[in-house]
Amino acid sequence: MDLNTLKSRFSGSKEQFIREWRELLAIQSISADPAFNEDCVRCAEWLVQKLKKIGFSTDLVSTDTKPVIIAELPGDTSRPCVLFYGHYDVQPPDPVELWQSPPFSPEIRNGRMYARGAEDNKGQLFYFICAVEALKEAGVTLPTIKVLIEGEEESGGKALAAGLQSWKHRLGADVLMVCDTGMVSAAIPTITMGLRGIATFEFKLHGPKYDLHSGVFGGIAPNPAQGMARVLATLHNADGSIAVEGFYDGITPMAAEDLDKIRNMPLDPADLAAAIGVPLVGGETALTPWERGGIRPTLEINGLGSGYQGAGPKTIIPSSAFAKITTRLVMGQDGKNVIACVRRHIEKHLPAGLTLEICYESSSGGALSLSTKSKYNQKAAEVLTATFGREPAFHWIGGSIPIIGALAEASGAEAVLVGFGLEEDMIHAPNESFSLDQFEQGFLFCGSFLQAL
Amino acid sequence: MDLNTLKSRFSGSKEQFIREWRELLAIQSISADPAFNEDCVRCAEWLVQKLKKIGFSTDLVSTDTKPVIIAELPGDTSRPCVLFYGHYDVQPPDPVELWQSPPFSPEIRNGRMYARGAEDNKGQLFYFICAVEALKEAGVTLPTIKVLIEGEEESGGKALAAGLQSWKHRLGADVLMVCDTGMVSAAIPTITMGLRGIATFEFKLHGPKYDLHSGVFGGIAPNPAQGMARVLATLHNADGSIAVEGFYDGITPMAAEDLDKIRNMPLDPADLAAAIGVPLVGGETALTPWERGGIRPTLEINGLGSGYQGAGPKTIIPSSAFAKITTRLVMGQDGKNVIACVRRHIEKHLPAGLTLEICYESSSGGALSLSTKSKYNQKAAEVLTATFGREPAFHWIGGSIPIIGALAEASGAEAVLVGFGLEEDMIHAPNESFSLDQFEQGFLFCGSFLQAL
Repeated sequence: MDLNTLKSRFSGSKEQFIREWRELLAIQSISADPAFNEDCVRCAEWLVQKLKKIGFSTDLVSTDTKPVIIAELPGDTSRPCVLFYGHYDVQPPDPVELWQSPPFSPEIRNGRMYARGAEDNKGQLFYFICAVEALKEAGVTLPTIKVLIEGEEESGGKALAAGLQSWKHRLGADVLMVCDTGMVSAAIPTITMGLRGIATFEFKLHGPKYDLHSGVFGGIAPNPAQGMARVLATLHNADGSIAVEGFYDGITPMAAEDLDKIRNMPLDPADLAAAIGVPLVGGETALTPWERGGIRPTLEINGLGSGYQGAGPKTIIPSSAFAKITTRLVMGQDGKNVIACVRRHIEKHLPAGLTLEICYESSSGGALSLSTKSKYNQKAAEVLTATFGREPAFHWIGGSIPIIGALAEASGAEAVLVGFGLEEDMIHAPNESFSLDQFEQGFLFCGSFLQAL
Repeated sequence: MDLNTLKSRFSGSKEQFIREWRELLAIQSISADPAFNEDCVRCAEWLVQKLKKIGFSTDLVSTDTKPVIIAELPGDTSRPCVLFYGHYDVQPPDPVELWQSPPFSPEIRNGRMYARGAEDNKGQLFYFICAVEALKEAGVTLPTIKVLIEGEEESGGKALAAGLQSWKHRLGADVLMVCDTGMVSAAIPTITMGLRGIATFEFKLHGPKYDLHSGVFGGIAPNPAQGMARVLATLHNADGSIAVEGFYDGITPMAAEDLDKIRNMPLDPADLAAAIGVPLVGGETALTPWERGGIRPTLEINGLGSGYQGAGPKTIIPSSAFAKITTRLVMGQDGKNVIACVRRHIEKHLPAGLTLEICYESSSGGALSLSTKSKYNQKAAEVLTATFGREPAFHWIGGSIPIIGALAEASGAEAVLVGFGLEEDMIHAPNESFSLDQFEQGFLFCGSFLQAL
């Protein structure tokens, strides 16, 4: 099916695609919060029904946490087998009050679908499914397509990591397709060549048995909020590098030619700064933003809380303080070692009188770095050039899709990461959205790439 | 009326006292949160009705914020006129989930009344009112008693501070009675000789326009949570002293004999540490806890928040961070100057890329320090000795009743601060309570003191 036919197929089915996409987005599949466990199951079941309708044989695999979908659509075995990976879970919608429309009541405004997960990953997952459906309905011969969709990508991915070895025999493939990434800018189709690994943890500092009166105990009792500030302030050096001993151990140096590509990304830092409304002064400011954001490890505070959170003053010394931290890791770093180093650092800097509790820690995957010379990434580049009329950018990004490295290894497939996200989609933030144009671009790429294999 | 008669009067009316005390405690008069404005008004109206019933002429004075009650019960003009000060507002009950019974559903367990405000100040305010009622009903001749009750003591006290000059002519008195303090321990009746002043403020650090993906922007965008930690960590020196330039300016040195009294308080620091479950390692650890907690200025973080507050991880760079801060001030310090110094300090240490917003600032009163030789405090000491069979302790405390200094000046009265609070009452914390014994002690002191004047 040529590009024009694919485009008219999209137009013809657009209404149905949007209706079903809305249904998928309305399900509150927030994996971080156990209160939404049943919604996660409902979301997985919805996808299973959809895949069945297209002709997939499906298996909804129960796990200790969220169910995993494994599905297969048998095809021409002489062609490279595709394994598609996606996730049906979404980030929490907080702070909910900043959303212009409710996060789980999908609403189209100015050609964009607004909802939590509109892009990440329900939108990008669903255009792939729609593309397979359209080709199947038109009677196009396809390679065998396997689908693996997990429900825990946003919160540690334990179930998939734990089950991978036992499901390995069902996942063998040549190409691992992932549509969970973005474009360097709206006009430039992009192949993602690298991902950072991730390790997350939360800790608490406990002080007094209960919140104390700050008049009576001010200057006597150790203050956990103050102690937390002092501990967190030691995590970085003045130059933005990370001050944790052992944190940078084992990092694989990048090939000079790749490093050169990254340093000379055809983008203007000023545009990025304008988009996010803040100068690019985070991290190791001696390096280019593209190195800092893509191939250098980071340590960021994602949440911080202690004491009174309401309006006005409250004269207490809080009984505890918490911090949620994420580190992004690069090739050669070991997540478990990094977490151990940070924990030792916190223990070493623990203020007098306070006790440390580690609430959780999770180190769910290492980094990934692909070669621009590999077979299916070159094929993807050809398809993108033909579909959108310009050569794609190769991009090493700072985000993580924790399982990709392990999944590529388990399936024996070459990972191909092509996605159509843009910074303006505001994934993980209030008012996440994905334009119908981006959705169509994803559909067209998937439809063309599956045929080209 | 002798002590024994007073005791049997208490027994006879106890049931009524408790019933009415419960009604008072059930009203959610939280002054910090504007959502409870109407509850504050209802609380003031309840007290007006009660005072009227006793025979007071009352005036519920509207202000820009919470209404103020001014009432008078004419008495023997040849005796010293009493002005009683109290407050009907309470601290927010957060964190509500830690209460064993709901904060505004008063419940008696093991001889203690549990409710927000059970002690501070509704309990201590109400035993005074009960004492006046009992004496009045018994036909005892009393001095003229004026009552001033505000509804903003826990949140800045702006209305009373602003109105004090215009109401001054109605408040003239000889003795300013305040029952809003505590005992150094359960067995030792206590006269409070000093209070710290207070200045509160909240500030925010703003970073990105919205919460960013910590993978994409980690290491690029400045992180307000991290910036906040760095700023807060600069506020104190390693020895626990406050690192803000100008903070200690103007402090009046304490008289050597008073300082000696404070340093040699007949209390064991280990008991205090056990009560609050934490070693006494806050503040200027080179000094005794009694100095640090009573006559040295402090700067405490009361609330701190940034980014994700829910369960599990969320991979964002928060768009902002806030901190709520209270400073306690001693004689000679000027609240406005202290706040200006802290603001300059924060501006000086503002991390690159972040902007500062001052959410509110309030400097509501200086410190107070009384002489143990003064007339009515000596009288109070005699009454306490006679009523409880042991000499009272003289105590310089760390808490603040912001208006007392100004009120003593405006009324021309000598302040007498006798209260029956204990650390175990957990004021400002979840499960605040006040025992029926403490309530009776307060009743007996007030009844005896009013007769002794």
